[in-house]
Amino acid sequence: MGRRYDTVSFLSDLGTKDEFVGVVKAVIRDIAPHVVVIDLTHGIAPFDIRAGSLALARCIAYVPDGVVMATVDPGVGSSRRAVAIEVAGGDGVIIGPDNGVLAPAVALAGGAGRSVVLDLSDLHLPAPGATFAARDVFAPVAGHLCNGVDLYEVGTPIDPDLLVPGVVPLPREDAGSLLCEVLWVDRFGNCQLNVGPDEVEQWGGHMSITVHAPDAPVRRTATMATHFDGVRIGAIGLIVDGAGLLTLALARRSAAEELGIAAGEMVILGALDGGEVLGVTSPVTLRPTR
Amino acid sequence: MGRRYDTVSFLSDLGTKDEFVGVVKAVIRDIAPHVVVIDLTHGIAPFDIRAGSLALARCIAYVPDGVVMATVDPGVGSSRRAVAIEVAGGDGVIIGPDNGVLAPAVALAGGAGRSVVLDLSDLHLPAPGATFAARDVFAPVAGHLCNGVDLYEVGTPIDPDLLVPGVVPLPREDAGSLLCEVLWVDRFGNCQLNVGPDEVEQWGGHMSITVHAPDAPVRRTATMATHFDGVRIGAIGLIVDGAGLLTLALARRSAAEELGIAAGEMVILGALDGGEVLGVTSPVTLRPTR
Amino acid sequence: MGRRYDTVSFLSDLGTKDEFVGVVKAVIRDIAPHVVVIDLTHGIAPFDIRAGSLALARCIAYVPDGVVMATVDPGVGSSRRAVAIEVAGGDGVIIGPDNGVLAPAVALAGGAGRSVVLDLSDLHLPAPGATFAARDVFAPVAGHLCNGVDLYEVGTPIDPDLLVPGVVPLPREDAGSLLCEVLWVDRFGNCQLNVGPDEVEQWGGHMSITVHAPDAPVRRTATMATHFDGVRIGAIGLIVDGAGLLTLALARRSAAEELGIAAGEMVILGALDGGEVLGVTSPVTLRPTR
Repeated sequence: MGRRYDTVSFLSDLGTKDEFVGVVKAVIRDIAPHVVVIDLTHGIAPFDIRAGSLALARCIAYVPDGVVMATVDPGVGSSRRAVAIEVAGGDGVIIGPDNGVLAPAVALAGGAGRSVVLDLSDLHLPAPGATFAARDVFAPVAGHLCNGVDLYEVGTPIDPDLLVPGVVPLPREDAGSLLCEVLWVDRFGNCQLNVGPDEVEQWGGHMSITVHAPDAPVRRTATMATHFDGVRIGAIGLIVDGAGLLTLALARRSAAEELGIAAGEMVILGALDGGEVLGVTSPVTLRPTR
Repeated sequence: MGRRYDTVSFLSDLGTKDEFVGVVKAVIRDIAPHVVVIDLTHGIAPFDIRAGSLALARCIAYVPDGVVMATVDPGVGSSRRAVAIEVAGGDGVIIGPDNGVLAPAVALAGGAGRSVVLDLSDLHLPAPGATFAARDVFAPVAGHLCNGVDLYEVGTPIDPDLLVPGVVPLPREDAGSLLCEVLWVDRFGNCQLNVGPDEVEQWGGHMSITVHAPDAPVRRTATMATHFDGVRIGAIGLIVDGAGLLTLALARRSAAEELGIAAGEMVILGALDGGEVLGVTSPVTLRPTR
Repeated sequence: MGRRYDTVSFLSDLGTKDEFVGVVKAVIRDIAPHVVVIDLTHGIAPFDIRAGSLALARCIAYVPDGVVMATVDPGVGSSRRAVAIEVAGGDGVIIGPDNGVLAPAVALAGGAGRSVVLDLSDLHLPAPGATFAARDVFAPVAGHLCNGVDLYEVGTPIDPDLLVPGVVPLPREDAGSLLCEVLWVDRFGNCQLNVGPDEVEQWGGHMSITVHAPDAPVRRTATMATHFDGVRIGAIGLIVDGAGLLTLALARRSAAEELGIAAGEMVILGALDGGEVLGVTSPVTLRPTR
C-alpha cells in the first residue's frame, strides 16, 4: 500500500452549467468517502490548456497534501496519455492529461518524481463513450490513490522526462522596451503580465504601456501602485499581484475593458519619452470595448 | 428509526449568483453536521423542468447512496406537491417537487418504492413567504432523513403510481429518416441527441443531418468519430458520449454555435443521397449564430 | 484557547471563473483540516459592497455556528481595516474588511461583541503583493479561529462602536405613495424591494407601481400573490419572499427584464387611481430591456 490522502484539489474547464463536476465528485466520494474535494476552479475557458496550466501553477503552492486533478482535456479519447505524477517526495500526486496542463505546476512543485500512464482499465469506470475521462478515468484513480493504492498500481511507469512540457511565455527586450504578454485576465479585469517588479525597476514607477501593437498601437502612462484603490482616477496602475507578477489594474473598474485587451495579447512597457505629463492621462475609453 | 445517510446530492436551477444554494447547504449542515453535500449542478436554466430531469437522469447512476435533492420548482408554493421517494430498496431517497423533474431518475434507479408527500410542517423551517421551499422544506427534510428519521415520519404516504411522470422524447422514423431532438447542449457546445449508436448503424458511419426543419432546412454531412479530436476540420462529428447517446460535436469548437441549434430543437438524420462528397463539407457558418 | 469551530461560511465577490475561492479554501483546509467551508455565494458583483452586505444579511440567520467570512473588498491593501467580530456570545465570528459589508449581518446577529483588527502579520501568509487578503489574511485567521485560537490572539482589540456602519435604504412616504428601492434582483429576475407586506396593506392587494421615475415614468398595476405561479399572465405580482420582503415577480419569467429595472433603482408604490381595470394590464415589454 502507498500513502493515504484525504484531499483532492480539482481544476478543470468543465464549468458548472452542466453536471460534469458534480458527477466527478460523486464518483470520488463513492470510492473514497473520507476525501474532501476542493474545487480550485472549473471556469477555465473550454479547451484552453494554457490558461489551465497557468491557473494550476498559481494554485500549486497552496493546495494541501493529496491528489491534484487537472482536466483541461480537449484531446480526451485520443492518443494523448492520461498520467499521474508524484511530486514533493510523495506529498502530492498530480493527475490529468499529458498535454502540458500539468507541467508548470509539476515544475513548481519540485519536478516530477515517479510517473505512470493510467492504462489499467480495470480501475476505470466502464463507459459507453470515451468523452468523459474525468469521470471514468481520473476520478476513480484519484479515489484509489486516496485510499492508499500505490502509484505503481494505478498505471505503468513512464519516464517523467518525456512528459509534454508546458509553455510559459517569457518577456523579451527590444530596443529598450519590454515586450510582455497578458497571462491572465481575472474576474475584476486585472491583466496579469509575465513580468515581475524587478524587470521594470529601471523606469522608477512610471512607464509607458502600448497595447494593440503593431497594427493600432495605443499608448498610455502606467504608474506603479501598491493596491487597487491607490490607482488614481484616469490612471492605469501596475500592481504586484498575489502571484508576485505585475498586473494592469484600475480602481474598482476593469483594466481589460478600459484597454480592450485579453489574455495572450502583447503589452509593451517602456520609458516615458518626456512628452507625457505624469499622471494626467485621460480617462476616456480608447476604443469600443469588446 | 430509518437508515442513516451521509451524502446529499443536490441539483437545482438556483444558480450560484445568489446565496440560495449556500443557504440550503447551511440548513442541512445545521441539522445534520455529518453530511457532505455534492453539488451536481445548479446551472439548470431557470424554470426548465425538462432540462433538470434529464441532467438528474444522467447523474443518477453515479451518485452515492443517500439523499438526492432536485429542486427545479417554478410552481413553488402552489398546489404542486413536495415529495420524497425511496429508490433501490432504501439505498437512496429522491426528494423534490412532484412536477416531473424527479421521474426519469426515479425510473433509472429502479422505480419508486415508498413515497410520501412532505406535508408535516413541523419539520420545516418557519418562513415568511412560500417562495423558498429548497431552504424551508427540502433542506430540513434531507437533514432529518440523513439523521435516520424514517421516510414515513417526514410525510404522508402516497401512491407512487400517481407521481407526475417525466417526459423523455423518443426519436421517430419518417420515410427512412430519423427525427431526433437535441436533449442537451453542454458547455462545450456538444449537442446530445435522443438516439444511440445502434439506431444509426444502417448508415455505416456517414449520414446526412438536417437542422432548422422545416422552415429553413440546412443539410450537412455527419461522420461518426470515437472522440472529439477525431472529428476533421470542417466536418460535423457524431460521437457516442458519456451517457451512451449520440452527440453532435466539433473538434475544440462548439457544434451548437456552428449549427445554430439549441436544446429542444429537431435534428433529422438520414442516408446520404450520393450528392455529397464525403467529408468535404464546408466549414463556413451556416447562418448568424445566436 | 478559545472555542473551536468546524464551519466557515464564505461569501465574496471573487467569482468562480478564477481560482481565488479554491485557493482560499485550500489555505483553510491546510490550517484546519476538520473544517467544512460552505460557499454562501461568490457571485456578488465585483466591488459591490452594498449587494454583498445585503446577501450576507439574508444568510446570517441560517449559517451554522462558526466563522463567517465575507470578502467584498475593493479597498484591499489600502488603509481599510481587516476585522473579526464576535457575535451571539461567541457562537459566531464574522470576519472581513471593515467597509460596511459586515455591518447588517452583525446587527442581525445581535450586534458586535469582542472585536479585533487583524494586524498580527505573523498569523498571515507571506505574500508578494497586497491584493489577495482573502487568501493571505482572512483564510489563515479563519483557520486559526476554527482551531481554537482566541479572538484576542488573532488581532488587537478595537471598539466595536467604531466599525463602519452598513447602509440599508429605508422606504420613504411621499404624498401618499411609497418610494422604495430595489435591493436585489435574483437569478430569476425577481426584484426584492425594501418594504414588507405591512407597509402596503392600506392598498388591499392591488396597487400601482411606477418605475424609471422621474425621467420616464412607466406605470403598471401590481397585485399581491402568495406564490409565483399565482401571478396571472400579463400581471405584475408582489410576493412576500423568503426574507419577508415584497418582491416584484412574474410567473416563470423575469420581472426585472419585463420592467427594465436593476438593483438600486427606485420603484414607487401607490393607490390605484381608478383609471386602471384590475388585472388587465398589458403584457407588452415597456422598453428595450438591457
